[in-house]
Amino acid sequence: MAAAAGVSITTVSDALNGKGRLPDATRRHVREVADRLGYRPSAAARTLRTGKSGLIGLTVTTYGDEPFTFTEFAYFAEMARAATSAALARGYALVILPATSRHDVWSNVALDGTVVIDPSDQDPVVSELVRQGLPVVSDGRPAGSLPVTAWVDNDHEAAVLGILDHLADAGARRIGLLTGTSTDTYTHLSTTAYLRWCERVGQDPVYEAYPAHDPCAGAVAADRLLARPDRPDAVYGLFDPNGTDLLAAARRYGLRVPDDLLLVCCSESTVYANTEPPVTTLSLKPRRIGTAVVQLLIDAIEGVESDQPVEQVIPTELIVRTSSQRRPPRTTVSPPRTPEEG
Amino acid sequence: MAAAAGVSITTVSDALNGKGRLPDATRRHVREVADRLGYRPSAAARTLRTGKSGLIGLTVTTYGDEPFTFTEFAYFAEMARAATSAALARGYALVILPATSRHDVWSNVALDGTVVIDPSDQDPVVSELVRQGLPVVSDGRPAGSLPVTAWVDNDHEAAVLGILDHLADAGARRIGLLTGTSTDTYTHLSTTAYLRWCERVGQDPVYEAYPAHDPCAGAVAADRLLARPDRPDAVYGLFDPNGTDLLAAARRYGLRVPDDLLLVCCSESTVYANTEPPVTTLSLKPRRIGTAVVQLLIDAIEGVESDQPVEQVIPTELIVRTSSQRRPPRTTVSPPRTPEEG
Repeated sequence: MAAAAGVSITTVSDALNGKGRLPDATRRHVREVADRLGYRPSAAARTLRTGKSGLIGLTVTTYGDEPFTFTEFAYFAEMARAATSAALARGYALVILPATSRHDVWSNVALDGTVVIDPSDQDPVVSELVRQGLPVVSDGRPAGSLPVTAWVDNDHEAAVLGILDHLADAGARRIGLLTGTSTDTYTHLSTTAYLRWCERVGQDPVYEAYPAHDPCAGAVAADRLLARPDRPDAVYGLFDPNGTDLLAAARRYGLRVPDDLLLVCCSESTVYANTEPPVTTLSLKPRRIGTAVVQLLIDAIEGVESDQPVEQVIPTELIVRTSSQRRPPRTTVSPPRTPEEG
Repeated sequence: MAAAAGVSITTVSDALNGKGRLPDATRRHVREVADRLGYRPSAAARTLRTGKSGLIGLTVTTYGDEPFTFTEFAYFAEMARAATSAALARGYALVILPATSRHDVWSNVALDGTVVIDPSDQDPVVSELVRQGLPVVSDGRPAGSLPVTAWVDNDHEAAVLGILDHLADAGARRIGLLTGTSTDTYTHLSTTAYLRWCERVGQDPVYEAYPAHDPCAGAVAADRLLARPDRPDAVYGLFDPNGTDLLAAARRYGLRVPDDLLLVCCSESTVYANTEPPVTTLSLKPRRIGTAVVQLLIDAIEGVESDQPVEQVIPTELIVRTSSQRRPPRTTVSPPRTPEEG
């Protein structure tokens, strides 16, 4: 490149990087030669010089080899929006990566670090990034011995126990679960909490699991759950579309919500404020999570000593709507409550 | 690298890329040497081999040298979400770039092409990308002679004329405009349409312009507009926060909306369904735009002959709420409407 332009390597570098004190003609000449040669500066070379690329990754890897447009789900969309804002505010570009692609996108970008959402227990992407010495912050505490730099998560066990108690308080006697088949910690911890709760209260577990990244599979699983001979009288669905999945299945079986079936699902969608009836949802606060993961990642990249722990637990919020509030049956008389009980 | 590992260049390449038939020990050895040397494959080198990186950019460049967390604005957030989904669905990684950064992020990533939102008339980023031979698709038709590959936009003139007629129909006699100081086509075309309408109907223009990326400046400009001696009795605000900016300013001056002041703003925020009173908004349909720009960009990258024109106009939608519907004054009697007029 320098030889072709008949100048020194320093001059080429200065001309292409807009640095140094060069005559305009020289700068122009070098650029023209660079264009003619189709020269693009190597990302790796630049990164070696500055030490940092200013690029951070974000991806969902759990669903493996299938294309998965995760931003179609409200949780991921809100989380990615907050992560983008946090990255831009600190001058970083956020690269939202497909888990799989016919292009070798991971090798084509010199990332300073990566956020991985819901990694599965043997996540090969996380292992490879850590092997390369790159900081990895996980949305969702890592399963097994996955060696991440930091993680941000909710207390999923507490959230599920809170929902099950809420449904039992509303009169549910057999609570079912709609869960996933993947091995990320969200699915794992939520399911385990449900099974433990069932054991504690002496209820047989009633659940159906499906591949959560396939929206059609949710409707089929909801149908299966309500078709069972041991049909539940309340259901908690772990994934965003489960509220509408379950409402549709209930309609097919002639079940009224909340009279015959109590419903709660985990969702960030505002749709559930306006369904018939409105559905109680658990919010995982994805905006707070998206901001937190990027702050932790950039702190790790820049070696900033943070006051924040490298494990952050974000509180969840149960938004109670009609679907989980059973009207008292007309044939029984509730004893009057004393103020102490209220 | 090959010398340090004592193997051929092909072996290094195969080992690091997981290709070829190599003994596990050789693969492991090469990887260890690579780690020791801090070797990362060059993005540029890989891109030269495959021709494509699988990475596409998205950025807002208009606001120049100041950090601008554009995803804090509902329009950009929704547009970016749709763009991300469209990119992931076609196996591309979307790089959301800050307009400015202390890292040289543009040079650290080998983009196959870029989406630029609202480029200004002399946009240096667009010019540089086009100079490098990269496809550039613009959200917002390019001003002047900016040489983009394709653009997607609304018909802003028609949208503004529709709003002004809507306000005049509701009884407005002096319509004001809250506009921006930047030179992107959205701001330019909307302002020009307003000035032409004023000329046509014989109204003196009443407008205030402010730097739209600064949220505080909107509140100040709204205040200035309502403090004028020639105070308007209706205002259209071009930017997302202008509805609340104007509601707050109206309150300070004791003006009732819609009785004393009719309001419309351009916004994608659902906030305006629940303000007091609810505010009429123009939606530019950012999801449709975000999807369209990415489809056009990837079509251009892959050389796909598209049935779609390289200029796409997306229809806008006026969502009419209380703020732009004036109750008929009690002292006058409206003539009864015939069915033909309704």
